[in-house]
Amino acid sequence: MNRAVIRYISGVVLSIEAILLLFPALTGLIYHEKAGWFYLITAVLCIACGFLLARRKPGSFVFYLKEGCIATAFSWIFMSIFGALPLWLSGEIPCYTDALFEIVSGFTTTGASILSDVEALSYCNLFWRSFTHWIGGMGVLVFLLAIIPLSGASSINLMRAESPGPSVGKLVPKLRYTARILYLIYLCMTIIQLVLLLAGGMSFFDAICTSFATAGTGGFGIKNDSLGSYSPYIQWVTAIFMLLFGINFNAFYLILFHKWKQAFKMEEVRAYILVIMASTGIIFLNILNVFYKTGDALRHSFFQVTSIISSTGFSTADFDQWPQVSRATLVLIMFIGACAGSTGGGIKVSRIIILVKAVFKELSSYIHPKIIKKIKIDGKPVEHEIVRSVNAYFITFIIVFSISVFIVTLEDKDLVTNFTAVVATLNNIGPGLGLAGPAQNFGHFSMLSKYILIFDMLAGRLELFPVLILFHPVVWKDFFSHKKKHKGRA
Amino acid sequence: MNRAVIRYISGVVLSIEAILLLFPALTGLIYHEKAGWFYLITAVLCIACGFLLARRKPGSFVFYLKEGCIATAFSWIFMSIFGALPLWLSGEIPCYTDALFEIVSGFTTTGASILSDVEALSYCNLFWRSFTHWIGGMGVLVFLLAIIPLSGASSINLMRAESPGPSVGKLVPKLRYTARILYLIYLCMTIIQLVLLLAGGMSFFDAICTSFATAGTGGFGIKNDSLGSYSPYIQWVTAIFMLLFGINFNAFYLILFHKWKQAFKMEEVRAYILVIMASTGIIFLNILNVFYKTGDALRHSFFQVTSIISSTGFSTADFDQWPQVSRATLVLIMFIGACAGSTGGGIKVSRIIILVKAVFKELSSYIHPKIIKKIKIDGKPVEHEIVRSVNAYFITFIIVFSISVFIVTLEDKDLVTNFTAVVATLNNIGPGLGLAGPAQNFGHFSMLSKYILIFDMLAGRLELFPVLILFHPVVWKDFFSHKKKHKGRA
Repeated sequence: MNRAVIRYISGVVLSIEAILLLFPALTGLIYHEKAGWFYLITAVLCIACGFLLARRKPGSFVFYLKEGCIATAFSWIFMSIFGALPLWLSGEIPCYTDALFEIVSGFTTTGASILSDVEALSYCNLFWRSFTHWIGGMGVLVFLLAIIPLSGASSINLMRAESPGPSVGKLVPKLRYTARILYLIYLCMTIIQLVLLLAGGMSFFDAICTSFATAGTGGFGIKNDSLGSYSPYIQWVTAIFMLLFGINFNAFYLILFHKWKQAFKMEEVRAYILVIMASTGIIFLNILNVFYKTGDALRHSFFQVTSIISSTGFSTADFDQWPQVSRATLVLIMFIGACAGSTGGGIKVSRIIILVKAVFKELSSYIHPKIIKKIKIDGKPVEHEIVRSVNAYFITFIIVFSISVFIVTLEDKDLVTNFTAVVATLNNIGPGLGLAGPAQNFGHFSMLSKYILIFDMLAGRLELFPVLILFHPVVWKDFFSHKKKHKGRA
Repeated sequence: MNRAVIRYISGVVLSIEAILLLFPALTGLIYHEKAGWFYLITAVLCIACGFLLARRKPGSFVFYLKEGCIATAFSWIFMSIFGALPLWLSGEIPCYTDALFEIVSGFTTTGASILSDVEALSYCNLFWRSFTHWIGGMGVLVFLLAIIPLSGASSINLMRAESPGPSVGKLVPKLRYTARILYLIYLCMTIIQLVLLLAGGMSFFDAICTSFATAGTGGFGIKNDSLGSYSPYIQWVTAIFMLLFGINFNAFYLILFHKWKQAFKMEEVRAYILVIMASTGIIFLNILNVFYKTGDALRHSFFQVTSIISSTGFSTADFDQWPQVSRATLVLIMFIGACAGSTGGGIKVSRIIILVKAVFKELSSYIHPKIIKKIKIDGKPVEHEIVRSVNAYFITFIIVFSISVFIVTLEDKDLVTNFTAVVATLNNIGPGLGLAGPAQNFGHFSMLSKYILIFDMLAGRLELFPVLILFHPVVWKDFFSHKKKHKGRA
């Protein structure tokens, strides 16, 4: 195993985090907050550790999927451990586990909070929470790929480990440029949303935090009622951008080059929009008698649907109080999630499409056993390997899900709370139902449950295997073995 | 499509049902009940329809999986439609939908009842309910295979459609003898249980009904508290037989020929026993403080675990009132189900083993991408086709499950009730939690929900595809097309 490259990548990531920590420090300076200093201290700690880890360049930059996964998992864990420090040091979140929960929830773009009173936080802490969404949304390793020259064939293994979806699509042959284009689209769209929010009369601080949380499909609110008290205009703009950030970024790339037709023909995007329209319709009809105005019912249903399916988790209403049909619809789309190649979480629309097509294929095999049809997406046959890995992903998801629910149940809360708390964290959404609902928070869970949910958030964001691999004994045997020669196969 | 053979098989099945209906008629005669006459009337109706359908022998007995599935689905639907008649005609279940629900629940060995007062039923109706479990447990088409000579190569398609599990194991080369051996083992075990129950002082009527319901892993009780008021001895005997009837019958066949070692080496059986022991242990510790005596806690936990995992659904206690950990454990094992090739329902232990092994295979592929290992069970590699079909089965199961929960939710009951009502019917278990719990019944569900649950019971018993295939437009086009030549491919 090429341990040197894992060490090096982790070190570089920590150095990047040190720089990122300067932004909340600056926020602290602007608002004259003492808490800002803790960001500076953490930044120094980060750069020191980063320097220690990355000071020696690895002898070889060649590495395989195994190392890519481990480097990614380690980077995310280290980032979270350091990222939680300022929240804890500032005393605004007195328990370190809570701070860790909050910041893992940030980086993984979950948006589940342990805070009952968000508005009590200082500006720099609020900024950092939202900023972590933006960093985690596109992924810090994708960022690293964009700025650091790594061997091309190897670096795809980092991208595969961090990017959501069943397969990694390169926009351009060079991965480095792909990463740059992705970040550019990401940045531009964030700025457009920011401008639109400012135009709606939102304060600059609120607008930037909301844009970060929308872009990363995170969902940390800066008000106790999330986006409930903002104007309908702000809510519509946010809802539309939540929808947009849940779309496969390849579509935006195509649109950028005026390939509109190709972009709108993407099966995944069509299915995603269709599910949103259908769910909004169902919930709209179901909550018509909850709200006085039809317009309100439409806005709240559209907002909640885009928020849940894109795995953002903002709310404009306490949907836990809505009728059962609406609640069930929301739970259902929690599992579907956003498009692959977006910043959203969940199982991903493209995986669901492949799974559904596999079912129809099986059904057809009962009618015409001898005809073997390949599953197609966008008219192209899907590789057998991808179908197999999508199947394995789905099964693994259900197994991790079941075990998590079971462990969380140990603290004797009701089934709906436990069930949806795990759904909401494993799919990186944020709020669930019951005691994990949008008007509640995750602070009341036990220490054990919190660590399980932290694990679920990380496993959900990195799409299970890069995190699960850490539990494979072979990996640790390789990692601590003294043989310098790396044995992984590409 | 060979429509003639579908017609013929359905006809023969109805004729068999006519004979089976004579048993409850006889019960009515013994207990001087008027309701017995309705069984006689229904038997006459059955034989008339059966004769009409089966009077002309089909020109060719060659048929394929498609026809096997359709014949099976039709047979089960017809059997249920006629089987529900006496319950309805006798006026003891005044609504036909309820009677249909009850009898589908019987044939599919679910054991979910719409009755709030079971003890008010007449003896012949009670007998028929339990008897349907016994008929449905091993399957009426397996019975048909045992007595009617069909072309060997074709008849496997009937067996594949009706028998539970990812693949059909023939015990002996001739399918006819396999079917006979299965029924013989089934009958002998039922008789042994009957004798043991009688030895425990149970009345003959109670003992025969309980044995039928245990053997078929059905779960209809003849008392309002299921088996709660019987002696601990009766409860232990029933629990052990529930466990046994959930075991792959191949194991019993091996034991019959003194191949003990081979029987106990079966991975599926081992896993099944292991899950039972682990779940019993967890629940036992969890309910220790609910019961006064340790012995009671052990008995109740073991009874409920074997009842749920074997998909029987008897109860000795209202486990809906137990602590959350016990409830969650029971819900978890609801999905696992019994062994393939048993009379039990659920996803089946062997499928779960294949799914878990597929996950480990995927995990290994992250570590050693070039090494392709085949999944093995009992030391033998599992065919790629079977792995694929197990994957498809699991996905289909989750999809059918989600859609069912969603439709049942339309009547605005709580999520736990809806969720577990579908779990309990789709896995052919019987009781769920909440308003579908062991102390409740399914009578309060709406007409729509009842038909969805009826569908789920049938889909669960016939393992999805033979029922789902009826919704495929191609099947109906073939069925109603005037071309006499059948086009199916083997």
